[in-house]
Amino acid sequence: MTDSAKPTYERAVIIGPGLIGSSLALALREAGAAKTFVGYDKENAVAERARAIGVVDEAAGDFKSAVQNASLIVLATPVGAIGELCAQLNADAAPGALIIDVGSVKGAIVEAAKSLRDDLHFVPCHPVAGTEQSGPEAGFATLFKDRWCIVTPLAREDDAYKASVTNAKALWEAAGAHVEEMDAAHHDLALAVTSHLPHLIAFTLVGAADDVESVAQGEVVKYSAGGFRDFTRIAASDPVMWRDVFLHNKDAVLEVLGRFSEELAVLQRAIRWGDGQTLHDIFTRGRALRRAIVEAGQETAAPNFGRNEEGH
Amino acid sequence: MTDSAKPTYERAVIIGPGLIGSSLALALREAGAAKTFVGYDKENAVAERARAIGVVDEAAGDFKSAVQNASLIVLATPVGAIGELCAQLNADAAPGALIIDVGSVKGAIVEAAKSLRDDLHFVPCHPVAGTEQSGPEAGFATLFKDRWCIVTPLAREDDAYKASVTNAKALWEAAGAHVEEMDAAHHDLALAVTSHLPHLIAFTLVGAADDVESVAQGEVVKYSAGGFRDFTRIAASDPVMWRDVFLHNKDAVLEVLGRFSEELAVLQRAIRWGDGQTLHDIFTRGRALRRAIVEAGQETAAPNFGRNEEGH
Repeated sequence: MTDSAKPTYERAVIIGPGLIGSSLALALREAGAAKTFVGYDKENAVAERARAIGVVDEAAGDFKSAVQNASLIVLATPVGAIGELCAQLNADAAPGALIIDVGSVKGAIVEAAKSLRDDLHFVPCHPVAGTEQSGPEAGFATLFKDRWCIVTPLAREDDAYKASVTNAKALWEAAGAHVEEMDAAHHDLALAVTSHLPHLIAFTLVGAADDVESVAQGEVVKYSAGGFRDFTRIAASDPVMWRDVFLHNKDAVLEVLGRFSEELAVLQRAIRWGDGQTLHDIFTRGRALRRAIVEAGQETAAPNFGRNEEGH
Repeated sequence: MTDSAKPTYERAVIIGPGLIGSSLALALREAGAAKTFVGYDKENAVAERARAIGVVDEAAGDFKSAVQNASLIVLATPVGAIGELCAQLNADAAPGALIIDVGSVKGAIVEAAKSLRDDLHFVPCHPVAGTEQSGPEAGFATLFKDRWCIVTPLAREDDAYKASVTNAKALWEAAGAHVEEMDAAHHDLALAVTSHLPHLIAFTLVGAADDVESVAQGEVVKYSAGGFRDFTRIAASDPVMWRDVFLHNKDAVLEVLGRFSEELAVLQRAIRWGDGQTLHDIFTRGRALRRAIVEAGQETAAPNFGRNEEGH
């Protein structure tokens, strides 16, 4: 953090230094937000790799030694691990610690956080950023730059907690993100639309391509530039992370999936009946929305995502 | 064409100098494949723009003057226009002309081409390449480089026609593409999988995002980096072109859409039942397929399509 009035953490621990955890460590390190960065992973080798490439200063061999003196604890694991981590934090974390997560689901996280001791200040966070790659080596300091981070605070009115919410927001701003606060239920619906459903559809499309017996996989690969390859990027994302998202945001995902299926039925019928006007009208909506996304700085304006400029 | 043994066309005309037509003109111009490039469009202004920016040497004011002396005729219009163009070619084109198209559907094109005079040699082609942009200004000479072009010749055994097929393939190779020959029905199924269904799904997803009343469009834009923005690229493609694709490849699209819907039902049920193992198994398939596409040179290996490297 460039502003010297903002707090600097003595000891920040990243639980699960994968793509997101490592990127946040690198961004906060550049911002000078903590003196020492510690990595912990249930697989020791992952924390060791994070240390070896300079993402963290130390690799902790066990959870207790990782968190017991930490003033900032970042939970960067799949969502399904958070419940168990809360129990461990109750046992081992130091009073007053700021705890943030990075999970793509927030309702289930808010629920899990209710089990924490009052002197642990858990601020649920979701940085809407990522790549299709995984592991400490995939992290980079600018991942959150100009992306949005959604914060969904717990229903606590005490000053210590409120100060922690302010501090959590300041961390994301230090990492280059814009911060927005909303309630967890709204987050889960909005992200079901903008992230969870797109991933589900991409995974489905990849499965369906495997399924047409008379089209060989080699052909799918060769002719993927016709559009299919765009979907394979997010379909290459971490399977465990995404399994947990769908298990923990079931209601919102099924709701938006219902909307999608209705829309698909309209298009299917238009194709079957040869209704060109309906097809044209629906197809026209995409341009305006893409233009808005480019103008909001959330997408590159270069055609083909700029692939051609790199010689691809 | 660098090989001086290959033919050079005296007068090549591009009917519909949009993204694909202009890119082919620019690529063939660089390869020295024709002496004069002529543009024609039912909207005169489009051909004029193509001329003004150097895509073609001349803009023809009417179809007859465009084609009557042309030895190479490229039909780069939406698929739905090809039937009427064939009637006009019968009236106006010079004997012996090589005619190619660039349409994303081939069965309907092969059918339309049966109405042509025997002395017109129509070789149906589909370069599997593009961007989400449209118009002459969107064209660039390297669009087809290392992409595949599928050629689906008519059922003609005469030597003149066979020579034309060879010449058509040579043109695409001169433009940098790899050429593959197959029958039109197989093309239409393979491309339904790798291109038409992905576009249909992308258009559907954009429509569904509009549909969830409690999520504002501003939120869809802000949080699009969660995955949604990947879909908006192909959903921004030319609506008329895509309307025609679905109207002319109905059977294959409905077939692969059926497979997609089955796969989606499996995932929907797994989410509803909390079946994490099924979700994980299906989600794991995406990584291998993406790796294969990257290894085949059809995709960039850079995370996020390399967006981050450009500062996005």
